[in-house]
Amino acid sequence: MVFILEPKAEQEKINSFILNWEEKGFSTILSVGTEHTAVCLIGNTAAVDLDHVVHTTDIVAYGKRITERYKAVNRTVHENVSTVIKVGDVSIGEGFFTVISGPCSVESEEQILTIAKSVKSSGARVLRGGAFKPRTSPYDFQGTRAEGLQMLVRAKNETGLPIVSEIMNQTQIELFEDVDIVQIGARNMQNYDLLRAVGGMKQPVLLKRGLSNTIEELLMSAEYIVASGNPNVILCERGIRTFETMTRNTLDLSAVVLLKQKSHLPVIADPSHAAGIRSLVAPLAKAILAVGADGIMVETHNDPASALCDGAQSLDLEQFGTLMNDLKKRAELEEKEI
Amino acid sequence: MVFILEPKAEQEKINSFILNWEEKGFSTILSVGTEHTAVCLIGNTAAVDLDHVVHTTDIVAYGKRITERYKAVNRTVHENVSTVIKVGDVSIGEGFFTVISGPCSVESEEQILTIAKSVKSSGARVLRGGAFKPRTSPYDFQGTRAEGLQMLVRAKNETGLPIVSEIMNQTQIELFEDVDIVQIGARNMQNYDLLRAVGGMKQPVLLKRGLSNTIEELLMSAEYIVASGNPNVILCERGIRTFETMTRNTLDLSAVVLLKQKSHLPVIADPSHAAGIRSLVAPLAKAILAVGADGIMVETHNDPASALCDGAQSLDLEQFGTLMNDLKKRAELEEKEI
Amino acid sequence: MVFILEPKAEQEKINSFILNWEEKGFSTILSVGTEHTAVCLIGNTAAVDLDHVVHTTDIVAYGKRITERYKAVNRTVHENVSTVIKVGDVSIGEGFFTVISGPCSVESEEQILTIAKSVKSSGARVLRGGAFKPRTSPYDFQGTRAEGLQMLVRAKNETGLPIVSEIMNQTQIELFEDVDIVQIGARNMQNYDLLRAVGGMKQPVLLKRGLSNTIEELLMSAEYIVASGNPNVILCERGIRTFETMTRNTLDLSAVVLLKQKSHLPVIADPSHAAGIRSLVAPLAKAILAVGADGIMVETHNDPASALCDGAQSLDLEQFGTLMNDLKKRAELEEKEI
Amino acid sequence: MVFILEPKAEQEKINSFILNWEEKGFSTILSVGTEHTAVCLIGNTAAVDLDHVVHTTDIVAYGKRITERYKAVNRTVHENVSTVIKVGDVSIGEGFFTVISGPCSVESEEQILTIAKSVKSSGARVLRGGAFKPRTSPYDFQGTRAEGLQMLVRAKNETGLPIVSEIMNQTQIELFEDVDIVQIGARNMQNYDLLRAVGGMKQPVLLKRGLSNTIEELLMSAEYIVASGNPNVILCERGIRTFETMTRNTLDLSAVVLLKQKSHLPVIADPSHAAGIRSLVAPLAKAILAVGADGIMVETHNDPASALCDGAQSLDLEQFGTLMNDLKKRAELEEKEI
Repeated sequence: MVFILEPKAEQEKINSFILNWEEKGFSTILSVGTEHTAVCLIGNTAAVDLDHVVHTTDIVAYGKRITERYKAVNRTVHENVSTVIKVGDVSIGEGFFTVISGPCSVESEEQILTIAKSVKSSGARVLRGGAFKPRTSPYDFQGTRAEGLQMLVRAKNETGLPIVSEIMNQTQIELFEDVDIVQIGARNMQNYDLLRAVGGMKQPVLLKRGLSNTIEELLMSAEYIVASGNPNVILCERGIRTFETMTRNTLDLSAVVLLKQKSHLPVIADPSHAAGIRSLVAPLAKAILAVGADGIMVETHNDPASALCDGAQSLDLEQFGTLMNDLKKRAELEEKEI
Repeated sequence: MVFILEPKAEQEKINSFILNWEEKGFSTILSVGTEHTAVCLIGNTAAVDLDHVVHTTDIVAYGKRITERYKAVNRTVHENVSTVIKVGDVSIGEGFFTVISGPCSVESEEQILTIAKSVKSSGARVLRGGAFKPRTSPYDFQGTRAEGLQMLVRAKNETGLPIVSEIMNQTQIELFEDVDIVQIGARNMQNYDLLRAVGGMKQPVLLKRGLSNTIEELLMSAEYIVASGNPNVILCERGIRTFETMTRNTLDLSAVVLLKQKSHLPVIADPSHAAGIRSLVAPLAKAILAVGADGIMVETHNDPASALCDGAQSLDLEQFGTLMNDLKKRAELEEKEI
Repeated sequence: MVFILEPKAEQEKINSFILNWEEKGFSTILSVGTEHTAVCLIGNTAAVDLDHVVHTTDIVAYGKRITERYKAVNRTVHENVSTVIKVGDVSIGEGFFTVISGPCSVESEEQILTIAKSVKSSGARVLRGGAFKPRTSPYDFQGTRAEGLQMLVRAKNETGLPIVSEIMNQTQIELFEDVDIVQIGARNMQNYDLLRAVGGMKQPVLLKRGLSNTIEELLMSAEYIVASGNPNVILCERGIRTFETMTRNTLDLSAVVLLKQKSHLPVIADPSHAAGIRSLVAPLAKAILAVGADGIMVETHNDPASALCDGAQSLDLEQFGTLMNDLKKRAELEEKEI
Repeated sequence: MVFILEPKAEQEKINSFILNWEEKGFSTILSVGTEHTAVCLIGNTAAVDLDHVVHTTDIVAYGKRITERYKAVNRTVHENVSTVIKVGDVSIGEGFFTVISGPCSVESEEQILTIAKSVKSSGARVLRGGAFKPRTSPYDFQGTRAEGLQMLVRAKNETGLPIVSEIMNQTQIELFEDVDIVQIGARNMQNYDLLRAVGGMKQPVLLKRGLSNTIEELLMSAEYIVASGNPNVILCERGIRTFETMTRNTLDLSAVVLLKQKSHLPVIADPSHAAGIRSLVAPLAKAILAVGADGIMVETHNDPASALCDGAQSLDLEQFGTLMNDLKKRAELEEKEI
């Protein structure tokens, strides 16, 4: 159940409204949007008389029952206004097409700086770089780890690009203090303790869909983060596992449309991991823009042939520049600021 | 193994070249493109000395080994020139974005004529309409069958739109004489006797990918048709079966890109069956254009709520008009004539 | 809706009962079981007053609404008595574990006869042999076709084993006159015209589950056959397509249990196609027996290394003998006659 | 590369052999089996002259190259002798069929004790009980947590049954000190930091296959644990995610056979989570025994209808007793001590 509050509701009255529900045994989530504030009520709401609450509580503009299992991330909470997340002067959400780019793995200070400067000049707004790498084999390169994170921070300081990197477990939270967006990888999408932990962080969370997780499960995992106190979640479609072996995964663009219909959160997609093949990245990126996503995360490398991971799916810096030009030409038609 | 012939090779010499291989036990497929003619050699080519053939046969410009299992539909056969199929004055293939539209099922003469006129004025170039309907249940509506096919032909005669309809078995071939494009449905993609049968027809074949068939299997099924004598095959991605239940199928746009890389045949996609939900059709259609497909097949109905099948995924005529306007605005950027 | 008739209902009264419903616009399917006779009513039964019919019709013992989309194959029709299909003196169904064995493809008269004699002496009750082979590539061996079917019939005449072979299209029906069980392959499970055609045959039909077809779709395809007049359908689980690549398909043993719960038809499984690897066949065969199936279909070959198809998954004749011994030891525990 | 050592190799020589390789930049894993000791060499072994090492090192009996990516868990390491893991007087591995049973969730001291006593008397050898529960929704019951773990330990003390429970993150390691087998759940199969952490524990680890993880990925995750120092890993097949919706997951019994062929580790299966439906549990359990698994983990509850989670798939205590009787009758035939 969600209550949309009057635009001018006083904070004191809001607090008292919330306290009242919690005393009755409900959990509440306060959701502050750009146009209105909403209070989600979690618990056995079957016995709550919605009309009565709306008519007798002056700070409540209207109320609605939510039948879906996801409450705080539900489109209903901020029906006409999608959430736009601000990271410095970068906006992620409705009306924007935010390009996040950088290498699979931060390999050296020189590498990350070269890439950062180049993708920035091409038009990327956020720099990605993996420091802790989840790898199928214990014998594969596991990332430059804490040191890699520091290199990434230096690239941010030098270029002004906000940075995003993947966190692997809750003991790493302090290490991520200077990381602007904290990424939860596909393999950890249902690592609920980690979701709760990043729910306590102040930075936005980029939550990738698991290889075989449904759209509803992705929304439920986002719900974990928001219910733990962090309203700034960016959903990311990155391909699902199917029987087809010619691609690494199968990009599910219907999921992008459905996620935006069912939730008010920003939705981006990752064509690099979806395809696993360089020559598919640019066409898929254009399709992602056309289908209505709020951005892409795309892997680039100054020397893909020598990349320590995911070289086969990384664009080189020139290819990325070409892609950005293609996207810029198309963004206006989609009413997106790029 | 494929031999590309000299542009001015005399027909007599070509015949003798082909005969010579067949006498040695090979099968051959002659593939006449707009820019050159190719001869595909099928059989145990390991023992053939490619260089020797090229140097000693004056009508052969050059030759190549094909390692993939699909030969005649292989990109290598017409490397720089994709096949463009002509149906009356409609072109399907590289450089075009051909919109095929119409109802799931031809229900009445009035219905199909109303839809035909409307989609034509909106910009569709081909009219679709199911007469024989493959239905999961024997108790569901099975189509208007032979009568429906006649209604479709009358709509073609009245509007000038070429028509496409699904054939279900080889005994129906005569019934399809006036159908401009013969469709093989997803469930019949590996009905090899039917593939051979339509390989003997003069009309182009629209071949839909099976629900759980790989990209390679789709190309092998196209190979059946071409090897049986019909070079005009249009490949159609229409969504694959995955674990996700929120959509009817999962549209695989990487398949569109890969099919165009690996084959010279035209590739279109069907957003209606992929999604199964009306509100996804337009965004997916735009993504299909952006990813580089040569067209779409989209279901429309004058009254979706009363449609005898697939109403939930059909656009009404106005929605289709809006979609066509959106596509027209975007086609030029993709260097496609719509 | 199904009506279970009184054991001694006179045929004349049954006919008149059926006629009465058909005049009201319903379809009916008469299902004669070993213990009782049932009449399935297909159509809009919402308006039928079930109690009224039962109380006012003296030949009706009781009646039930069936909500599932499959009616005639529904367990409800013959609740306590599963259908046992007789092929000569071989029984297939509840209480039996019928082993069907033979080569993927009939290659020569000598080959099929050698295999037939051997598998018979080991304990197989039905001989399988493919004559028309559905192959992914048009350039692969397509079977010995009509000639192969004749070789199979000669092996039947010589050994007394009933035979099963796959039909590929409805024009082949006459060719299958001497084939005891007609097989519909996985790729044709939703070839509805073919299902209707074998519904008109007098022989039992072995219907294999499609690679990506649900349990419900398999039952609906069986319903097509029964509704077309042929009540003797044997369901066959043969592995489904999943993301796992180490096996050819994934054997779904839960499907065997569910099919037997939801339908009165016999259910067997094919460990050879499910696994695609010889060393898995025997363990899976034992699991199929343990899970409650009514039989297996297993590929054997006198010389698997030289087999024209599926050699990698075929048992040699000795391995098959060993497997039969293992199965015989276990059949009694499962209350199955082998 | 694996070196099998002479049975009487002195420890000092082994240490020096290992040290020598590590000085050359290789990682090594020492694997002590019941019949022989093996040393796995990880790194760029292409340049190592295997014959030379075998002939010049007196403690090395023979050596082999392993091409698979999993080394320490590879069958090759202990070819003829599968690993049998001892937990108190309970054995898990080749020659045994160990039944693990108990509730999805420890709900109260009375509940767990009732269940423990009953399943012990029926023949279960290990008690399972979830304390920390991974749940799709943050609003669902999350387990009795640390308190639940203590109740489980009390049930162990009272009945003598060793216990297994799921760990959710590496900060919980101390809490699990008295838990005899530590379970990694399906959602955490690729939580590599957690795998490394349990690799440092002294207890055996029960590693469940992820919903959409391949057989090779499961072996690679086991490799993480062994390479981190814990050789006692029990692999558990528990159903994979497919398109079929009638069951919760699709049990993959081919995986059980393949895992035992490719690794020396014990392999069990979980019919409860695979099916999600009570009536499938017993037939699947019998199939798991027949296919050659080393045990099952099956959910039981004293009152399934009131269970706080997974009631629909839990057997009641009487049903479990019946199943145990069925399994005992069949174990001898499979040469398994139950």
